[in-house]
Amino acid sequence: MDPRVEKRLGLKQLVDKVVSAEEAAALIQDGTVVGMSGFTRAGDAKVVPMALVERAKNEKFKIDVYTGASLGPEVDNYLAAAGVINKRGPFQGDSVMRGLVNKGEISYVDAHLSHNAELVRQGIIGPIKHLILEAVAITEDGLIIPSNSVGNSPIFAEYAENIIIELNISHPEALIGIHDIYVPGEQGKRDAIPMTNAEQRIGEIGIKVDPAKIKAIVISEEPDAPSLIVPPDEETQDMANILLDFFRSEIKAGRLTNELMPLQSGVGSVANAVLDGFADAEFENLVVASEVLQDAVFNLIDAGKVRFAAATSITLTEELQKKVYGNLEKYADKICLRPQEISNHPELIRRLGLISINTALELDIYGNVNSTHVSGTKMMNGIGGSGDFARNARLGIFVTKSYAKGGAISSIVPMVSHVDHTEHDVDVIVTEQGIADLRGLAPKERVKLIIENCAHPDFKEQLWDYYNRAYEATGGAHTPHILEEALSWHVNLAKNKTMKKETANA
Amino acid sequence: MDPRVEKRLGLKQLVDKVVSAEEAAALIQDGTVVGMSGFTRAGDAKVVPMALVERAKNEKFKIDVYTGASLGPEVDNYLAAAGVINKRGPFQGDSVMRGLVNKGEISYVDAHLSHNAELVRQGIIGPIKHLILEAVAITEDGLIIPSNSVGNSPIFAEYAENIIIELNISHPEALIGIHDIYVPGEQGKRDAIPMTNAEQRIGEIGIKVDPAKIKAIVISEEPDAPSLIVPPDEETQDMANILLDFFRSEIKAGRLTNELMPLQSGVGSVANAVLDGFADAEFENLVVASEVLQDAVFNLIDAGKVRFAAATSITLTEELQKKVYGNLEKYADKICLRPQEISNHPELIRRLGLISINTALELDIYGNVNSTHVSGTKMMNGIGGSGDFARNARLGIFVTKSYAKGGAISSIVPMVSHVDHTEHDVDVIVTEQGIADLRGLAPKERVKLIIENCAHPDFKEQLWDYYNRAYEATGGAHTPHILEEALSWHVNLAKNKTMKKETANA
Ligand SMILES: CC(C)(COP(=O)(O)OP(=O)(O)OC[C@H]1O[C@@H](n2cnc3c(N)ncnc32)[C@H](O)[C@@H]1OP(=O)(O)O)[C@@H](O)C(=O)NCCC(=O)NCCS
Ligand SMILES: CC(C)(COP(=O)(O)OP(=O)(O)OC[C@H]1O[C@@H](n2cnc3c(N)ncnc32)[C@H](O)[C@@H]1OP(=O)(O)O)[C@@H](O)C(=O)NCCC(=O)NCCS
Repeated sequence: MDPRVEKRLGLKQLVDKVVSAEEAAALIQDGTVVGMSGFTRAGDAKVVPMALVERAKNEKFKIDVYTGASLGPEVDNYLAAAGVINKRGPFQGDSVMRGLVNKGEISYVDAHLSHNAELVRQGIIGPIKHLILEAVAITEDGLIIPSNSVGNSPIFAEYAENIIIELNISHPEALIGIHDIYVPGEQGKRDAIPMTNAEQRIGEIGIKVDPAKIKAIVISEEPDAPSLIVPPDEETQDMANILLDFFRSEIKAGRLTNELMPLQSGVGSVANAVLDGFADAEFENLVVASEVLQDAVFNLIDAGKVRFAAATSITLTEELQKKVYGNLEKYADKICLRPQEISNHPELIRRLGLISINTALELDIYGNVNSTHVSGTKMMNGIGGSGDFARNARLGIFVTKSYAKGGAISSIVPMVSHVDHTEHDVDVIVTEQGIADLRGLAPKERVKLIIENCAHPDFKEQLWDYYNRAYEATGGAHTPHILEEALSWHVNLAKNKTMKKETANA
Repeated sequence: MDPRVEKRLGLKQLVDKVVSAEEAAALIQDGTVVGMSGFTRAGDAKVVPMALVERAKNEKFKIDVYTGASLGPEVDNYLAAAGVINKRGPFQGDSVMRGLVNKGEISYVDAHLSHNAELVRQGIIGPIKHLILEAVAITEDGLIIPSNSVGNSPIFAEYAENIIIELNISHPEALIGIHDIYVPGEQGKRDAIPMTNAEQRIGEIGIKVDPAKIKAIVISEEPDAPSLIVPPDEETQDMANILLDFFRSEIKAGRLTNELMPLQSGVGSVANAVLDGFADAEFENLVVASEVLQDAVFNLIDAGKVRFAAATSITLTEELQKKVYGNLEKYADKICLRPQEISNHPELIRRLGLISINTALELDIYGNVNSTHVSGTKMMNGIGGSGDFARNARLGIFVTKSYAKGGAISSIVPMVSHVDHTEHDVDVIVTEQGIADLRGLAPKERVKLIIENCAHPDFKEQLWDYYNRAYEATGGAHTPHILEEALSWHVNLAKNKTMKKETANA
């Protein structure tokens, strides 16, 4: 046996479970529910899914795939394209998967990422026939050490009938010890989650399972697919500066200190770029308590700004992967990976008083946010953890550029075409134009801040025109709308490729 | 001094603070923020507000009024009509208040009821110049014992500069001891809330305040305004039966036991009527962990079905008021009133695994729920605690009749005109027609259950027609919509007083 494998496979009774990816893939049965590790392209099973792709060339079968969140191309691109996936939950972010979801070929159940575990406990998700779980090691005492994400693996492992391990020896051994696995018990019988600050460890370094459940171990050396985020640009830098100034004013108002509160920052390029902006700011001793640690967090650790960062996954670009995974020892005592039920738990988000920064696709003049549906119909990625955080955060911030598609689209519209976050869950909005602090305001009071401070100049007049006419038409009702027109900007976009109203040329 | 007052005013240093309602009302200053006790017409200040109404006859002044939830007529009708209220939060349910809100004359900030306390701590609500607090007693050691509701009074008392007490001697003394006041500390510094079952007491029987803050005590004998709910009818009885059958099937599936899980049931006639349906069912030993205890809960205690009921307020019709307040000793060890921050806390709702039953105004074919805005524009009451419960409950159930206004309105529409609860927060829908169990389903999978099981027969065909054409038009996208038409049912209602499409008579 490869000595690298021998070292990582501590529980020797499992040695005879080592099989090829094909053999493991052959265990998966048509029509079953399969859990997979992985969260935002990190720590996902790779070689068994690719063997399933191979198998699908000669055999028709379908499975339901539940994961932590989005996976890399092996599942959400190749396996999806092979026609193997019937149902998918709870998050994805791949163009192929998205395409199939929006053609009605894959049934996609996106969900609050903190909710999945309860659904597994209740058997709403399940019965899980197999869990395919990427690990960096199995310890002598039978703990499975996950790799770059924890996600839903602990709850899947508890409820799955069978487990297939992808033992990935390319991941650094220094990952051992950074996980903190705590799984709440049955509702009504469980204790309070015993965490009162984000740096606290409350669980074990790996997932405890009955070794009898482990039916196959496949050795892997496939790295995680790198994150696809694009680097900060001038506008995201502006957004970061606006946000930093807001934090300064909160400190002046006595609501924050220079250490702020634990920061959560969402998936995607914009949220990462905004966090990057902290590198040159005066805030220090920051704690990150997030879902995903993207590039920015490690840059901030390097810059001495972040003293501790917890999440459920680490998702890095190729450049950062090299830097971080090549020197993981350096970061090991500053990071922690938890189950997504814990990283996203309302109990903890509220108790710890998180500042959460997530990205909107579009938002409306009253502060409702759409994070998921392009023009109300086409799924982009999913709600992910944005609802867990925005609803329960001390400060729920949404960021977005004020426009999309070169200016044809205004990210601020009269009425969002789909609601993920209601007006009650959105405290602050930041675009490259400015900031709207909506806390404590009634809907009509929010309008001025949102249009004047956040909308793109090209659309301000059009937004005021809608609002003023809606106010008039409804006699100043609580939330003025002209229902005939509320979604007309999206209709215009579909017809004329722009949200800009035709203006009669004088 | 009236011996009844003497008995209730234990802290003798406060005796010289007893003043008339007029004198107390004179303390309230124009332009200030005033906190008031009261939750769903229960435990609200009455005589000082009425003195403010008097004062307003000769003086122009405005105040912002924050409460637990909706108050009785003294504030939300008379004081509102007197033009005294500038801003109002976080919930109301009065036709006069609603009218002024929908004419733009009162700025209304409705909010998740569990969120207010955090906003007070952060100073977003405030500074609170005065709190007017109805109490049944002030104990010798300076605890203020609230009356029929707790609401936000503890957090208001902590942050208010001055407190005016309405000592209401008409409330039964047996109220002393039923409250359980626990107030979390600062975010980031607080402990877990030490409650692991809904029957547990974790706090004190009253609100501890610095006696120096108490600037006036007014003696009152005004009873709470009775609840306005209407009795169950045949259709709500059908809804109850459908729900009871659903619980039976959940027991069969091993997801519930005969004791169910702690029940939350929302405000309003429908939720009360549905709960009433438990009286003749086999479920026993039930626990209620709710926001409001309406008539049905006391009927169920009498019937031996409910063994314990906790909430933040007791709101009863005139008939039940007599029965319950006349014999409160009988119920005293079976009920408990908590701050709304606790009754509605995500931490506890999730930990205890509540079953929550709230009422929708309308919902759409994908499971999004509107609880607040008539035709997207006019505020009815507010989101109240429905979001706290639906999002965090083990089972989030929404009930509504399938039609409104004699059949002109379908409660099930292509797209709700306002979203309070997203598709991710709605597990089960019940109308008098039937039930849709949406758990684990993708949007398009929900459509059939919602239309076939829940919609009124008069509207089924029209709903299918919309969905089928939307499916076609979008090529089976994730959430098919035709944006030009999505809100056309509401537009039709405004124009033609019905959501029914004109059908060409052959
Ligand atoms: C909203 C979300 C898609 C934004 O992603 P992002 O990478 O930061 O943002 P971008 O501005 O690059 O937008 C992504 C795409 O949406 C498009 N887009 C942005 N706003 C749009 C709008 N109003 N209408 C249509 N398309 C829009 C962009 O043009 C871009 O398209 P492209 O990929 O074809 O270039 C992403 O943050 C997300 O999925 N959020 C939901 C889940 C979540 O918030 N999780 C956080 C908890 S950790
Ligand atoms: C939604 C809500 C208004 C329903 O109240 P209810 O008393 O149970 O229900 P009703 O069916 O009697 O409806 C109330 C009114 O709304 C009207 N209505 C109902 N559905 C409607 C619709 N789809 N469109 C327009 N009006 C509608 C009814 O006709 C009735 O009007 P009326 O007072 O003029 O007769 C009420 O439950 C609420 O305010 N909910 C939000 C807050 C909440 O859920 N809190 C719970 C946490 S404890």
